[in-house]
Amino acid sequence: MTAQGFDPELFLQMGRDVLAQQPFSLLLGAELTHLKPGEVELQLVLKDELRQQHGFAHGGVVSYLADNALTYAGGTAMRVPVVTSEYKINYLKPATGERLVARAKAIGIGKTQAVCRCEVYAVLGHEETLCALAQGTITKMGEAPPG
Amino acid sequence: MTAQGFDPELFLQMGRDVLAQQPFSLLLGAELTHLKPGEVELQLVLKDELRQQHGFAHGGVVSYLADNALTYAGGTAMRVPVVTSEYKINYLKPATGERLVARAKAIGIGKTQAVCRCEVYAVLGHEETLCALAQGTITKMGEAPPG
Amino acid sequence: MTAQGFDPELFLQMGRDVLAQQPFSLLLGAELTHLKPGEVELQLVLKDELRQQHGFAHGGVVSYLADNALTYAGGTAMRVPVVTSEYKINYLKPATGERLVARAKAIGIGKTQAVCRCEVYAVLGHEETLCALAQGTITKMGEAPPG
Amino acid sequence: MTAQGFDPELFLQMGRDVLAQQPFSLLLGAELTHLKPGEVELQLVLKDELRQQHGFAHGGVVSYLADNALTYAGGTAMRVPVVTSEYKINYLKPATGERLVARAKAIGIGKTQAVCRCEVYAVLGHEETLCALAQGTITKMGEAPPG
Repeated sequence: MTAQGFDPELFLQMGRDVLAQQPFSLLLGAELTHLKPGEVELQLVLKDELRQQHGFAHGGVVSYLADNALTYAGGTAMRVPVVTSEYKINYLKPATGERLVARAKAIGIGKTQAVCRCEVYAVLGHEETLCALAQGTITKMGEAPPG
Repeated sequence: MTAQGFDPELFLQMGRDVLAQQPFSLLLGAELTHLKPGEVELQLVLKDELRQQHGFAHGGVVSYLADNALTYAGGTAMRVPVVTSEYKINYLKPATGERLVARAKAIGIGKTQAVCRCEVYAVLGHEETLCALAQGTITKMGEAPPG
Repeated sequence: MTAQGFDPELFLQMGRDVLAQQPFSLLLGAELTHLKPGEVELQLVLKDELRQQHGFAHGGVVSYLADNALTYAGGTAMRVPVVTSEYKINYLKPATGERLVARAKAIGIGKTQAVCRCEVYAVLGHEETLCALAQGTITKMGEAPPG
Repeated sequence: MTAQGFDPELFLQMGRDVLAQQPFSLLLGAELTHLKPGEVELQLVLKDELRQQHGFAHGGVVSYLADNALTYAGGTAMRVPVVTSEYKINYLKPATGERLVARAKAIGIGKTQAVCRCEVYAVLGHEETLCALAQGTITKMGEAPPG
């Protein structure tokens, strides 16, 4: 803990604890590799079972990563439990390679919502290729889902 | 119409063959339950490993289902190999229950692109609850992804 | 007023009064032609100054119409003052013709948000051509915009 | 680089000539203040007739600016005539002030499509406030709109 009470290691560990409680994130093998308020890096190894019929990562895997990265960015920016209300994603290139890395940031941060952006890269060796762009709204839990 | 060589059973079977070639769809247990040109129903049983920390279906699962249903709707509408270029999804309610059902339709159908819409329902017993709305662009393969 | 206190004529008139208070809607010549809770039809004549360099309606005009129709649908569904939080729009065809008609519905209605869908048609004589699809989130005023 | 025949002044002037051919852009008073391949700044003075009933810029005005800026970014990146296929916009704050400035960039650039991002700022004196984020697909003319 620093004088301001922010401990980067502890913060990352808390994020990893949340991830470890998501069975679907475990199934996909997601790893949280960077986390600070409003900023996150989430990765996964592109195992065979995460691919579609052409050998690329299935769009659902890229979407999962973007969705979850957006949620971490928004949740750590607002420091409250959150849900993803909505997002859009543009696929730029087939996601091939050894792993996928998503990096997301909270851009517009309010009391009940944060609008976040995310880039997803396909990684092969030391080379990263941008393969998707996402943008979405993360909402304080209890505020968002209609109903 | 069989006179024109359209066989509904064969059409559905061809769709299932494609799904069976997607390792990620097998991992998630997706089942194609209806398919005709421009119209699809895709389902999955909500197994424990598809949930997040609150017991709901992970957003990535709902997204996967919407993404894949949109792709089937667009691909069967245009009758060419396709990719999902982009989509947006709004989560309406937590996706709980026994299974998820996505129904998608191609609305604006062109030569190289189809704009499609999808609804995702959570099913418990005989009751369906609308839990997500998606809209996206499906593009003829080789036309869409930049690069 | 009926027994339930809902007067369709009065409801439409109240909607028109709101529209008349929007200088931008007056500039574009928007007309509210149908309004009931969660359902709206908004039109405009495609004057020359609403076009782009190819003679079609400018995308900004189609977007205005979709945005405003989504807002009416969400606002009348929740019966509170609202703002548009976000939306996405797919342009399907060039918007030509004499007028544009947007029809929107609230689909997922909650206490603080409504997720709505909209179709925009270009009208020439008696023929309507679907030219855009939109989907977005309408939020109770004071709840939504970050900051 | 002038050696390669790229003249920044001429490029900006060509962009302004296109804008001058859009009656709707003239109606709204849009000004192109920066343009290079894949990068644009588009502004307008927030005249009274561009506002809604609360005195803020109408969402349709913010959308127009984002839509048009995305189109310029994509069109100058690909150097071909283009149309906007689709975009999504998140409104962050009410757009007040004297003028609005939209800045857009092409991020994923292909032969037939460019995926672009845009930020819209409200300007009061020397202060800029981020009020909207957009992301969309710009497509080579003749490739995109279904039909």
